[in-house]
Amino acid sequence: MITRLNAHPNYVTCSSCSGRIAVFCGVAQTPHDEDSHLITKGGKWLVSSHAPVTYDEFASSVLADPTSLQGMVIFKHEPFIMHVQCRDEESAKALLQVGLACGFRESGVVLGNKRTMVAIRTTANAMEIPIALQGQLMVTDAYLRWILDIANQKFHANRSKTDKLFAAMRTSLFFDSPPAPTDASTCTSRLTQLHVTESSRLAISRAGHATVLGTSFAFNLVACGG
Amino acid sequence: MITRLNAHPNYVTCSSCSGRIAVFCGVAQTPHDEDSHLITKGGKWLVSSHAPVTYDEFASSVLADPTSLQGMVIFKHEPFIMHVQCRDEESAKALLQVGLACGFRESGVVLGNKRTMVAIRTTANAMEIPIALQGQLMVTDAYLRWILDIANQKFHANRSKTDKLFAAMRTSLFFDSPPAPTDASTCTSRLTQLHVTESSRLAISRAGHATVLGTSFAFNLVACGG
Repeated sequence: MITRLNAHPNYVTCSSCSGRIAVFCGVAQTPHDEDSHLITKGGKWLVSSHAPVTYDEFASSVLADPTSLQGMVIFKHEPFIMHVQCRDEESAKALLQVGLACGFRESGVVLGNKRTMVAIRTTANAMEIPIALQGQLMVTDAYLRWILDIANQKFHANRSKTDKLFAAMRTSLFFDSPPAPTDASTCTSRLTQLHVTESSRLAISRAGHATVLGTSFAFNLVACGG
Repeated sequence: MITRLNAHPNYVTCSSCSGRIAVFCGVAQTPHDEDSHLITKGGKWLVSSHAPVTYDEFASSVLADPTSLQGMVIFKHEPFIMHVQCRDEESAKALLQVGLACGFRESGVVLGNKRTMVAIRTTANAMEIPIALQGQLMVTDAYLRWILDIANQKFHANRSKTDKLFAAMRTSLFFDSPPAPTDASTCTSRLTQLHVTESSRLAISRAGHATVLGTSFAFNLVACGG
């Protein structure tokens, strides 16, 4: 879908992540204050998986030598996120409303002076769990297995939600034939309730789907993967 | 600051939360599937505090009778969030750029057909930690004390960040005299780098600060507190 979106004349993705299960080992903001639990962005990723994670995979990356883990270790589940540069505000609005209708409730437009960017995101299904400090595990093995199980379930829920988003994008932005009645069509139905303007539909329709992106539009963008 | 923002002719807050430490007891999405760990929005708040929480306060609300806690119990720290309806896209852009410059990185504009809304938010400092399932605590008392300590530190960090945001809003949206050089002025400096347009500054300036909001602008808004 990302590839197809980039072929649309109104959109180019700047970065996206399908969602991941991750473990981050963070550095203390104030290393000489033992009571401080705030960390900087500096640190290292022990796990960063865009697929479900087994306990054995987790253990080999995190638990093999926990005493070597300085700083604070945080277990995370991060849902799908996508940043898309849009040709204009009408196209941004159309994409935003698809995202909101599909439950990506923390989506929004960043109106810059030169660029209009849409972030499609949700904080639902996120997890942020400190599990170790200065080489000492703070939770039991049973707890780690439990949160891994939860994270894997959230990973699948995130994937279903993303599938619905992509189906709604195909229908609303590319005007593919709507799928048989499923949850994806529920998104499309909700989208109608959100009153996507006919003018924006027409603008996208007129723009066509095969135009090669001009350099001025795609300039300075980096695909970050994820 | 919220009161003052509501006195601005270009803005009216729809909802805001200063940030909170909370414990939520959630209901399973599929109650007959014991392996399912996904919860619905239904449930009850055991703790919802807009101030730091002591261990005793936490214990009396959550641990007094953990066996009575059905479903999944989740410990949370939620940072500041504010939804603001804006008069037009220029005023939305000005507010958005203040938020982004002050580190509220997940802020964005929701462009509706009738309304333009800005959400000022960040996911930094959020915590989402399952701690109990079907009446059984899954973590130790020491772990609970630790995450409570972290949450209280994040609460203070969130408050500092919000103070900087409000200081930058006073300077950029209300044109108060800038404060002595502090982190707040760093926000203002970054804001300049983000190129707030002169036209938006002038538009806000011309609008003045004392106009009473017209009914058409404030229509249908609910102040949700927080």
